[in-house]
Amino acid sequence: MKIGFIGLGIMGRPMALHLQKAGHELFVPERASLKDEIRQVATVLADPAAVAAAAETTILMVPDTPDVEAALFGPRGVAEGIGAGKLVIDMSSISPTATKTFAARIQEKGGDYLDAPVSGGEVGAQQATLTIMVGGSDAAFERAKPLFEAMGKNITLVGGTGAGQTCKVANQIIVALTIEAVGEAMVFASKAGADPAKVRQALMGGLATSRILELHGERMIKRTFNPGFRIALHQKDLNLALQSGKELGVALPNTASTQQLFSACVAAGAGQLDHSALVKALEIMSAHPVAEG
Amino acid sequence: MKIGFIGLGIMGRPMALHLQKAGHELFVPERASLKDEIRQVATVLADPAAVAAAAETTILMVPDTPDVEAALFGPRGVAEGIGAGKLVIDMSSISPTATKTFAARIQEKGGDYLDAPVSGGEVGAQQATLTIMVGGSDAAFERAKPLFEAMGKNITLVGGTGAGQTCKVANQIIVALTIEAVGEAMVFASKAGADPAKVRQALMGGLATSRILELHGERMIKRTFNPGFRIALHQKDLNLALQSGKELGVALPNTASTQQLFSACVAAGAGQLDHSALVKALEIMSAHPVAEG
Repeated sequence: MKIGFIGLGIMGRPMALHLQKAGHELFVPERASLKDEIRQVATVLADPAAVAAAAETTILMVPDTPDVEAALFGPRGVAEGIGAGKLVIDMSSISPTATKTFAARIQEKGGDYLDAPVSGGEVGAQQATLTIMVGGSDAAFERAKPLFEAMGKNITLVGGTGAGQTCKVANQIIVALTIEAVGEAMVFASKAGADPAKVRQALMGGLATSRILELHGERMIKRTFNPGFRIALHQKDLNLALQSGKELGVALPNTASTQQLFSACVAAGAGQLDHSALVKALEIMSAHPVAEG
Repeated sequence: MKIGFIGLGIMGRPMALHLQKAGHELFVPERASLKDEIRQVATVLADPAAVAAAAETTILMVPDTPDVEAALFGPRGVAEGIGAGKLVIDMSSISPTATKTFAARIQEKGGDYLDAPVSGGEVGAQQATLTIMVGGSDAAFERAKPLFEAMGKNITLVGGTGAGQTCKVANQIIVALTIEAVGEAMVFASKAGADPAKVRQALMGGLATSRILELHGERMIKRTFNPGFRIALHQKDLNLALQSGKELGVALPNTASTQQLFSACVAAGAGQLDHSALVKALEIMSAHPVAEG
């Protein structure tokens, strides 16, 4: 299939290369930052409009809602190259409510639209093991499925337009709040004089079991905070959750307080560390670092 | 071994019966509420002091810190029957700081002391699959191990006196805050128009994976709130966490807010429901029940 790919950063680059290796033809817009490994295998065109005109399916993987809006609807954006039978897949993590507007505007031009944000990070992108959460029609999903299968593993059509982004927000809420929960437990146990490593061990296997207790709990104890997934990015995702919550009328009390702890981490210069370093905000509040007992 | 058992309620009764079946001799204090199944297999003595005097090891399984204090140090309490070579095991879930005081007072009389709270609830007690978190000396732990193995499965010596209770508090913090996290995500997804069952499905296997998402997430969606573990009991455990946090100088921001949500559930008449019904407080705040999309 002829695939347009917009956003060839840390995530997008390995994803695009997996598609090319699976036999698809890549079209990308010119940018000074384009890496040689992409130039060697892709057709480089002038702008997103030219890419969308040349491709059957155009994929976006950019940082935030305004970046998606600019790539789709800015001057010489994707929308100018869209017509009947073309598919746009936004794999960025952006606002579920803005997604509905973007999809409607693409559909007005005869195109189809899927929102398909991912989790699994840089490692998942490189190993083609991303979790992909999809919103849109059954028909568009079936059409895009071979592309998703080249980039990820756990692929779910969650519902209609916006449901993929909604699911991603739900994921980021649970991950952040579970990290915070493990952080409170580890600081409490450590300051009470127990060995947090033994506490973590005793809790694994019971109701407190989680991927976060396993992975991020260990990082808190071993003090390995190299990312991973950066606090600054998770902060952006919780902003999205709180903004969407406000628009939808959903109260998210612990998302709000956890976002404040991320802010405290950024203030302490920890914004570029892995999100497990959220525990640092709790350690500052309790004047006690997690330490083996 | 000659075992004294004090506190033969929903948890203590099956635990004591497992010990008896494993070949131990049971001694229990007289109480009007003693069930026939206990009277038939145990020697009933006048009071806790007589039980502790007759037994080598005396186990307590009572509701709260003041109940342990009364059983140990009240008139004709366990302490009056304690001497050199005797062991007290408190399997109740109580204050880690009070535990250190209780242990010191028993040790003054020549006895040894373990704190060994459990998780796994009524089902774990009946099936002898309790998780047992132990604080105390290596020697006392080795001595008590065969008893623990008759009642539970995942048995860990976490550290010195109080470490078992500290570990249990850490467990209850993580469990409550993870339920709250899943609740926020489910209400958000549902009010955004997604099907919470599909969102849960898409998130299982990724970083958001937890025993709570699996079990309690399903209960929130299917509205099966029969306990399980009651909100009123988890509220008691978070009180313990917040009280201990205050004594130790540990800030527990999301434990505090989650405790408020448990209070809101109690106010709404949900205190006797399973702790997964915490989602009801979030639903009230967002004027939206979790419903399949």
